[in-house]
Amino acid sequence: MQPIALVGIGKIAVDQHVPALAASPDWHLAATVSRSGTVEGVEPFTDFAAMLAAREDIRVISLCLPPQPRFAYAEAALKAGRHLMLEKPPGQTLAEVHALQALAAAQGVVLFATWHSRMAAGVAAAKAWLAGRVVQSAHITWREDVRKWHPGQDWVFEPGGMGVFDPGINALSVLTEVLPAPVHLTAAVLQYPANRATPIAAALTFSGGVTADFDWRQEGPQTWDIAVETDGGSLLLRDGGARLLIDGAEHPQGPNREYPALYDRMAELVAAGRSDVDLAPMVHVADALSLGRRVVVEPFHF
Amino acid sequence: MQPIALVGIGKIAVDQHVPALAASPDWHLAATVSRSGTVEGVEPFTDFAAMLAAREDIRVISLCLPPQPRFAYAEAALKAGRHLMLEKPPGQTLAEVHALQALAAAQGVVLFATWHSRMAAGVAAAKAWLAGRVVQSAHITWREDVRKWHPGQDWVFEPGGMGVFDPGINALSVLTEVLPAPVHLTAAVLQYPANRATPIAAALTFSGGVTADFDWRQEGPQTWDIAVETDGGSLLLRDGGARLLIDGAEHPQGPNREYPALYDRMAELVAAGRSDVDLAPMVHVADALSLGRRVVVEPFHF
Repeated sequence: MQPIALVGIGKIAVDQHVPALAASPDWHLAATVSRSGTVEGVEPFTDFAAMLAAREDIRVISLCLPPQPRFAYAEAALKAGRHLMLEKPPGQTLAEVHALQALAAAQGVVLFATWHSRMAAGVAAAKAWLAGRVVQSAHITWREDVRKWHPGQDWVFEPGGMGVFDPGINALSVLTEVLPAPVHLTAAVLQYPANRATPIAAALTFSGGVTADFDWRQEGPQTWDIAVETDGGSLLLRDGGARLLIDGAEHPQGPNREYPALYDRMAELVAAGRSDVDLAPMVHVADALSLGRRVVVEPFHF
Repeated sequence: MQPIALVGIGKIAVDQHVPALAASPDWHLAATVSRSGTVEGVEPFTDFAAMLAAREDIRVISLCLPPQPRFAYAEAALKAGRHLMLEKPPGQTLAEVHALQALAAAQGVVLFATWHSRMAAGVAAAKAWLAGRVVQSAHITWREDVRKWHPGQDWVFEPGGMGVFDPGINALSVLTEVLPAPVHLTAAVLQYPANRATPIAAALTFSGGVTADFDWRQEGPQTWDIAVETDGGSLLLRDGGARLLIDGAEHPQGPNREYPALYDRMAELVAAGRSDVDLAPMVHVADALSLGRRVVVEPFHF
């Protein structure tokens, strides 16, 4: 097992990264870096540079910080010659991820920009089923409750936090993985709370009959669906890609293990010395934020 | 001389493209497509598909339409097997330009995404001078009067029109050409008129001490300057790149011939069968529109 350090011990680290690492045959969680979070039995650091200096034996770093501070940590990790795994989105701007790609290549280390939803149980089967078909239309419904998933996390509404595109980019990561041909945004309407800098809801129109409805105000049941109509039947990915229905019939998939699969993949990439950075989901978000028509809605408070 | 068709006979076509083509040793302006504009002595069409069908002999198309309708024309031109030259910006989204790149490659035709300011007289010399130096800081001042350069053109304030980034992207096209190492946006403040969908002014902060000040409300003298401080002296590009000063001393350049140089380049690309699509300036604009903090300012009317 290889030692790995986890940086940013917040909700997503505790909910997903730590259990995935604990169960992994490839990785040993050897250090954490966080202002306040720790993991029992793991050497804790509060300063990233100190960890990099003290633990030369740790060659792989996983960052699960919010996008705004992430670049500085990512740059430091790569400059220190470490392989690097990034939570989604891989940055707050496209150009900063391009800079990380160039730096990783120059340093001869691996950079993995993860998209956890692409690892959902039904995604690979959906991609295979769509590969031989012509897509006539597709609709994404991605509606969840920001208070449940990001309690009190004001950074999501700050510039760079992406607002409802924080979950929406998960849908776009699946869409760009499964569609047999790329699409591009043609119009968007973005709902900005009067007191916030990023949208809380978005309606997107893409080429090829593809649309998306993102909303962060849904209480009660949560919806993460992608429905695709083709010349050879209809496909429905539910529960964020965990379930697959073809023409209304459930096609049972294995267990949903998004984060374990990401760490499996990172082990493969490090062994092969290969990077994996696909910016297509982030390009769609940048396009939507650039092209979208802005509508101001009521203030939002956690 | 090769025949070429010009699509979109508006202000920029009349001011720049038509004179550049008239003086070119490579090109013969053989057709125009425009709802209302025409060029004396040139076969006029109002319908693009009709022109493509009627003039199979014209293998090269130059589009100078606003970004919003441009994709549909570009796609039609490429699907009809024509080489294609695009005014800046090459699209209203990054993904649509990626789609055009893929289509041009599949069709075996040339795609040239032009950046006219990169052809300004002092740019090549500025790039050569900076190549051996370390940039310590740089500042762009790009202040012009939208009423003078886009009289009554409401499309610039519609989504996709980019607002003050319409001229600002010219500055960014020069910056990304001359700097010896890439930079990325870290913060932006965008001023939106209360009645408009795109910004009228922007203050940008990039990595590496690079800043930019774009404003579309400057009456009187217009300012298009890029000042760079290095470990080996200071450089100033003035008048949009037409003039070059090193440590305050003017270094005389040849005549400023931006559009003639673009058409020279297109002739070279077609002869070589090579495309030229650099999206770096557009990535910076998408990053700024995505990351920028929005401030609402007084309504703007032409």
